[in-house]
Amino acid sequence: MKKIMNHVDQMVDEALDGMEAAFPQYLRRIVGTHVLVRRTPKPDGRVGLVSGGGSGHEPAHGGYVGRGMLDAAVAGEVFTSPTPDQVLEGIRAAHHGAGVLLVIKNYTGDVMNFDIAWEMAEAEGIPVASVIVNDDVAVQDSLYTTGRRGIAGTVLVHKIAGALAERGGSLAEVKRIAEKVIQNVRSMGFALTPCTVPAVGRPTFELGDDEMEMGIGIHGEPGTHRQPIVPANELVDELLHRIEDDLGLGEGQHVMVLVNGMGGTPMMELAIMARRVAEWAKERRHRLEAQWVGEFMTSLDMSGASLTVLRLDEELTDLLQDPADTPAFRQGGFHDH
Amino acid sequence: MKKIMNHVDQMVDEALDGMEAAFPQYLRRIVGTHVLVRRTPKPDGRVGLVSGGGSGHEPAHGGYVGRGMLDAAVAGEVFTSPTPDQVLEGIRAAHHGAGVLLVIKNYTGDVMNFDIAWEMAEAEGIPVASVIVNDDVAVQDSLYTTGRRGIAGTVLVHKIAGALAERGGSLAEVKRIAEKVIQNVRSMGFALTPCTVPAVGRPTFELGDDEMEMGIGIHGEPGTHRQPIVPANELVDELLHRIEDDLGLGEGQHVMVLVNGMGGTPMMELAIMARRVAEWAKERRHRLEAQWVGEFMTSLDMSGASLTVLRLDEELTDLLQDPADTPAFRQGGFHDH
Repeated sequence: MKKIMNHVDQMVDEALDGMEAAFPQYLRRIVGTHVLVRRTPKPDGRVGLVSGGGSGHEPAHGGYVGRGMLDAAVAGEVFTSPTPDQVLEGIRAAHHGAGVLLVIKNYTGDVMNFDIAWEMAEAEGIPVASVIVNDDVAVQDSLYTTGRRGIAGTVLVHKIAGALAERGGSLAEVKRIAEKVIQNVRSMGFALTPCTVPAVGRPTFELGDDEMEMGIGIHGEPGTHRQPIVPANELVDELLHRIEDDLGLGEGQHVMVLVNGMGGTPMMELAIMARRVAEWAKERRHRLEAQWVGEFMTSLDMSGASLTVLRLDEELTDLLQDPADTPAFRQGGFHDH
Repeated sequence: MKKIMNHVDQMVDEALDGMEAAFPQYLRRIVGTHVLVRRTPKPDGRVGLVSGGGSGHEPAHGGYVGRGMLDAAVAGEVFTSPTPDQVLEGIRAAHHGAGVLLVIKNYTGDVMNFDIAWEMAEAEGIPVASVIVNDDVAVQDSLYTTGRRGIAGTVLVHKIAGALAERGGSLAEVKRIAEKVIQNVRSMGFALTPCTVPAVGRPTFELGDDEMEMGIGIHGEPGTHRQPIVPANELVDELLHRIEDDLGLGEGQHVMVLVNGMGGTPMMELAIMARRVAEWAKERRHRLEAQWVGEFMTSLDMSGASLTVLRLDEELTDLLQDPADTPAFRQGGFHDH
């Protein structure tokens, strides 16, 4: 196992400190917790957004703490749900009088622990709502889920629900828009190499030198099938075809696409995928409102990528274009720097 | 070799198209060239900045094309200098009546081809100046250089010289500030794994399962020595010690640090390095004005990182804080979005 680390048992703790050390203008770690919160809290009366889950998906979710996206991110151990008391800390920090929306990726442990935290928070008088993201079209159920997995599409929920919260939407409104994103977002990924969970020390599956794994999740679990490595364009087409099918996406739609590296994927290779995505949009007469290309929701050191398509309407497009200022995603527009 | 690509011979061409497809709001590719230029050119009368070099270092340099940094980026084949006629295209596109500064990483081929392009541009009446970045403290001469190599510190030259150009500094002033950055910036890197040049198809060197390579450059060349993998803190300290020594950095200075992944390094591991950098700054009573943590100047799919330290004075700090809006680095402050 080759990792830049001090000790396996300290990785998560040190990475959380490291996020604060790297991005102090955006966030701080609540002392004694696994919670990263905005350095400058949102004004009172605005809905708070909390997300989180296991570590190993950096920059998710701490990288999305900042104006226009999350108020708090809660981290568990690697690929392990955060505990309810940690989530509760996040909810408390994100509550500014208008309640808190929890954005949960669909994994059994996350759903359970966020639910318990929700009950604890409501007992304290904090209004809470939640949405569950399940954008991965690769599998119906998985090792870790009942129903589909939540993967990179989650970041688009952060963006759009975050924008409405920033504008002053109510908890019910922010929940409604988050649900709308979830209804219209689908993803699928592949791996060229597996990842290595630090505490395990060996790759989570084996792949031959000419093989790739299709339909992987973000927890090192094997995908739906193994196949010889295909050219990038063919690969992009296959992923988009699966997503289109599932989404029932006709021609001539307004869409945005996220080209997401899995942690060990160079920008050059993601750019080659982005090129084919733009061609696909033209062929299908879609209006490609935006591409986000980079590493957004990773799986430790895995080499590979996922594609996410979000079908847009006027409301979603408008919110997508709102400014955001976080460590992992920034978009101009705030006028008070 | 595992890469997301169509054909080895098309990688650079498709990655350039891909950068335009991914970041159309920032840049466009000049048709028929390897040159990426700003979508919205700088106003007339401002100095243009051009950088470039071999491909394989993405997001460098196309990722720095945008307000506050570069006007044009010129790409060669993988790890190969761009030809003079391509550099000339970049210079022409970046010239808005006030001349062009070339930011060149110190590699024999780059220096030669940028120099020829300079002569061609001056023959066309475009005032040109150049600076050569040589921030790598690991080696005095290398496989590809006379004198030290230019690596990640180059991005800070883009940032600070770009800021002064944006403010309206003259060609002589922009060159002076670039030289000042170069005098005060030092870097050193290491690799956990080698990279694989697409046209070669095998790793550029071999490393055992428990070994790392210190003092690597950004072209897959071996470093200065091989050693067993050490804990992250020890590694950061060793790099910083080498840099401090070379820079003659006393205690209590104003500094900024770039923690740069080499292409295959997850954010989680870079964050662990950033944590130690912040501790080091505190121990040395430095004022750490900023850390930039991410992948800025890569070496294909190499796993590893480099550290860059820039010693700041008031003038450099001020320019460092100016806004920037490019695909790979954004900082708030423009008021006209």
